[in-house]
Amino acid sequence: MTDDLLDPANPALLPAGLSDLLPPEAAREAALVEAMMAVFASHGYERVKPPLLEFEEGLLTGSGAALAEQTFRLMDPVSQRMMGLRADTTPQVARIAATRLRGAPRPLRLSYAGQVLRVRGTQIAPGRQLPQLGVELIGVDSAEADAEVAALGVEALAAVGIADVALDITLPAMSPALLDAAGLEGAARHRLARALDRKDAAEVARLAEMAGPPAIFLTELLAAAGPADGALAALRAAPLPEEPRRIADNAAEVVAALRRRLPGLRITLDPVEFRGFRYHTGAAFTLYGPGRTGELGRGGRYRSGEEAATGLSLYPDAALRASPVPAEPRRVFLPAGHDPSAAASLRRAGFVTIAALSPADDAQGLGCTHELRGTQAVPLSKE
Amino acid sequence: MTDDLLDPANPALLPAGLSDLLPPEAAREAALVEAMMAVFASHGYERVKPPLLEFEEGLLTGSGAALAEQTFRLMDPVSQRMMGLRADTTPQVARIAATRLRGAPRPLRLSYAGQVLRVRGTQIAPGRQLPQLGVELIGVDSAEADAEVAALGVEALAAVGIADVALDITLPAMSPALLDAAGLEGAARHRLARALDRKDAAEVARLAEMAGPPAIFLTELLAAAGPADGALAALRAAPLPEEPRRIADNAAEVVAALRRRLPGLRITLDPVEFRGFRYHTGAAFTLYGPGRTGELGRGGRYRSGEEAATGLSLYPDAALRASPVPAEPRRVFLPAGHDPSAAASLRRAGFVTIAALSPADDAQGLGCTHELRGTQAVPLSKE
Repeated sequence: MTDDLLDPANPALLPAGLSDLLPPEAAREAALVEAMMAVFASHGYERVKPPLLEFEEGLLTGSGAALAEQTFRLMDPVSQRMMGLRADTTPQVARIAATRLRGAPRPLRLSYAGQVLRVRGTQIAPGRQLPQLGVELIGVDSAEADAEVAALGVEALAAVGIADVALDITLPAMSPALLDAAGLEGAARHRLARALDRKDAAEVARLAEMAGPPAIFLTELLAAAGPADGALAALRAAPLPEEPRRIADNAAEVVAALRRRLPGLRITLDPVEFRGFRYHTGAAFTLYGPGRTGELGRGGRYRSGEEAATGLSLYPDAALRASPVPAEPRRVFLPAGHDPSAAASLRRAGFVTIAALSPADDAQGLGCTHELRGTQAVPLSKE
Repeated sequence: MTDDLLDPANPALLPAGLSDLLPPEAAREAALVEAMMAVFASHGYERVKPPLLEFEEGLLTGSGAALAEQTFRLMDPVSQRMMGLRADTTPQVARIAATRLRGAPRPLRLSYAGQVLRVRGTQIAPGRQLPQLGVELIGVDSAEADAEVAALGVEALAAVGIADVALDITLPAMSPALLDAAGLEGAARHRLARALDRKDAAEVARLAEMAGPPAIFLTELLAAAGPADGALAALRAAPLPEEPRRIADNAAEVVAALRRRLPGLRITLDPVEFRGFRYHTGAAFTLYGPGRTGELGRGGRYRSGEEAATGLSLYPDAALRASPVPAEPRRVFLPAGHDPSAAASLRRAGFVTIAALSPADDAQGLGCTHELRGTQAVPLSKE
């Protein structure tokens, strides 16, 4: 983009995966975050702001254990203990709920917004600093709670102009429960889990057949992935063992609770998917934008310390790509000696004002669309 | 605050100087930041968002050199180069202005908001993670530019309810210029600089007398600190050598430009103060809140790479302490089976709604002030 990037002595200005957000995107991202946080607040989710750095024990327990390899660590010269730069905010919110807010009434509704940092990006998501915002609903274990959180994500995205969001529900505990019920262990279990992970239907069918009765449902449930109504019908029809049946019934309750809140929402259900939900204990969900905008957020049921919880994270960088670009503000040039109260009125009316600081300042060169003459903003003619 | 803090096996939940911001302060801080950023935007300052981490060379050049000891460093496993966690945002904005925005028209107006981290806190400011927001006005060297930036700080603080702000101007180049003019070097210069730093008037007088003519003004200028008009009169009256005269005349211009913008602003001027302004090249300023609220922001003229610049940082943590506490929102309990459109109307009207998720949920226990009955929010009687 600039010569500096081509300078062989200075191969990159910034480390891979770390970047500057420039105008107007930085302002748009901040506006999206605050608009979504306002939706959370309107439903009683109160904001907390944990620090970016804390002792690694705090960051890497509970749901944080999954992110240990992705957490930057550094020595605290004050305490001589290792600290981590957070790679996720959920473990910090769990810590707050279990300590300083232990005495607060349940269900406890909390929200957060901030940056997370990761040691390495992935091929799909090369960023190593990611904005993140979300909610945690702590101390309640019910389908209503799951539905409240998932619906909140849809409402927050709608508030920033992202309509037509689709919700994909997964049941990360279903496959392990079926493998347990089939008594599968060791290499046989590992092979079947890998085939499920790859969605290799032929291999799942072959291995499940060998494994016997309850594993056979894996083939059916793999095929049942799709619109929620069809998937739920398949789950109802299958004579599942006890634990898988409980998981299936819970999924049906969550979908029903969501339908009551958002009758028009597109819901899909993939009963045997479990990728990327390493700490979820119940229904998990992913929010997708329309078209090719991809994943906008993710959440689900988990354990927050000793308590039942449901959480949701939204990705403002993805929302930025998916949301409509607002109109550029009108920019008014204020010549030397202008009337300051007229300029203040224009700012209150939504204009951006650019004051002349020297005779060299040029209205059009500075991107102004208008100029203040007397008390009026006069459009500049385009040349 | 909690038992965990008293647990001898777990002496502190968080490293010294790092803390959680809880409800309602976290939401208040975020609202203050965005309200102040909106003021900056209305004057044409466009937001940038540099990353929290970057190569240390980028962070520690220019104005960043002063913060080298305060910058957390860590090895980037991807590039095998050292990175720093920013201790200040100004060097990053300078980098952006000099590279990706090199071709943007000048004066370039940029703003930022985010967190900075420091290796150690100070006794007065023990925090090691500080929120910071600010502006940089790059590519213009004039009293008008200094006044625009200082006035912007006052306007931003007023927008969050902090009126009656006082502005203290210092001229960090004045003392060195007088010491230069007196030809003072080595130990003699160091002693006089230290006496000035301690504001030890008797010692300054004694040493200045020994040093001879131009140094003698230091005694007068130390005594002249106070309301700007008096201090400027003392500067005018003193027969200063060339460079100190230029600095004094510039101060008078900056004060005059500020008076035109904010006729009622309390301005003090301390001509020989230079503490804490290690990279400022012209007029520097500090904003103080009323009463004992202390320092709310700081800024001044500096070099941004090859360009003239003026900047300002505001401290949202200090603004949080100084600004009025807003009224708590009304919280409406939504019983099971409530009318969702009535609840949505209440949220649009500024109510916070708390939906019942189980029969155990209790309106007053959850801090609700109202309950939805039919389509009406009915106040709960206090018991």
